[in-house]
Amino acid sequence: MTYCVAMRLEQGMIFAADSRTNAGVDQIATFRKLHRFEREGERLIVLLSAGNLATTQSVLSLLRSRADDDSVPNLYNARDLYEVAGQVGATVREVIDRDEGQGQSSGVDFGGSFLVGGQIRGQGSRLFHVYPAGNFIEATVDTPYFQIGESKYGKPILDRVVDYRLPMDQAIKCALISFDSTMRSNLSVGMPLDVLTYQEDSLGGGQHYNIDEHHAFYRELREAWSDALSQAFRNLPPLRL
Amino acid sequence: MTYCVAMRLEQGMIFAADSRTNAGVDQIATFRKLHRFEREGERLIVLLSAGNLATTQSVLSLLRSRADDDSVPNLYNARDLYEVAGQVGATVREVIDRDEGQGQSSGVDFGGSFLVGGQIRGQGSRLFHVYPAGNFIEATVDTPYFQIGESKYGKPILDRVVDYRLPMDQAIKCALISFDSTMRSNLSVGMPLDVLTYQEDSLGGGQHYNIDEHHAFYRELREAWSDALSQAFRNLPPLRL
Repeated sequence: MTYCVAMRLEQGMIFAADSRTNAGVDQIATFRKLHRFEREGERLIVLLSAGNLATTQSVLSLLRSRADDDSVPNLYNARDLYEVAGQVGATVREVIDRDEGQGQSSGVDFGGSFLVGGQIRGQGSRLFHVYPAGNFIEATVDTPYFQIGESKYGKPILDRVVDYRLPMDQAIKCALISFDSTMRSNLSVGMPLDVLTYQEDSLGGGQHYNIDEHHAFYRELREAWSDALSQAFRNLPPLRL
Repeated sequence: MTYCVAMRLEQGMIFAADSRTNAGVDQIATFRKLHRFEREGERLIVLLSAGNLATTQSVLSLLRSRADDDSVPNLYNARDLYEVAGQVGATVREVIDRDEGQGQSSGVDFGGSFLVGGQIRGQGSRLFHVYPAGNFIEATVDTPYFQIGESKYGKPILDRVVDYRLPMDQAIKCALISFDSTMRSNLSVGMPLDVLTYQEDSLGGGQHYNIDEHHAFYRELREAWSDALSQAFRNLPPLRL
């Protein structure tokens, strides 16, 4: 499985993904799930992927190869992020239709989902969740984050903390805790984590962090959170039923 | 959906279930999912159910009607909890085979799962998770709790806190927090909660609590936990990536 989360906040955007891919428990590999398309000073587009690896890799390959050909609609000549989400959705459908069409699918789930976000010069940043059907929804001030993959374990802490006006440093910590909760409960989500933070209107490539087991701050954060939770639990009012 | 959790700890057992049943979002009803079979001073057996309501209700109806007939194997003449779990599993298979056998299932999932726990005089308490296939696993000192239904949202807090030696009052609070986290993130799990606590070797019916939105301690607990989490989050070390 996979776990990815993306947020679109007042100050900017955060993208985070684990890197574990598995087919069964004895075929585990590390694959990047965070992909960037950027033109310095003009646009940054970030894709997070979850689902069938053959599908999501094919979608990325097609998007990359088309991006070099300015005679076709692609992620670099799209007018806005809405058009970008539409291109990703159409490519997802194209790949799934191709692979399912080969007829011998024997119950395989070809589905793949994407979180697509970024900013184009002169426009505000936007974030979309593209479904395997190719359609998509957009994040708003009321719902500023999306998750794909193994999302349930790490949702409660996001629901309690994330708000459109949350400062970036707080939101990054919240995302890391959400990953920690998920990885403690589910072995199919694993380190290292890919984290990309993007300051609104910076139109650079954003800051990219690769966080593995030995990352000093991540270790400090998970220990501090674990201790704080234990203490919070101990300090709860005595049981009265 | 449903969320149920059961724990078998050193001091006793805890069973907790929500009471919301839904088919789609506009057909929501309240059904008890915690069921007791007891002979004061001799045995207490508790079943928690999740899955297809037609299946789980039928299983309960058959188990209840057979329990009155001492000429057949039933929950009151079973020699031990292992035999009880086997009877529940066999009844689950019987109901699913009957309903699926009618041929017009049109993709309906007839599956139902049970948590089955309790104590029979002269034996230690035991807890089982019975699968839709009718087979089952047993809780151990290393894995003292089981969940069925919408279990992922509420698993991280259990993983962090629950241990076989955890005192009962702490474990009950942990179960309630696990429900609170689940209900905040998933509308298909809802109040009131059914909670049954059983002191090891008491062989009585246990203590039963029905906890609704207005339950004073539950409200105090969820507010205290929410405040403590917010404070714990604010006190995390400053971000250093």
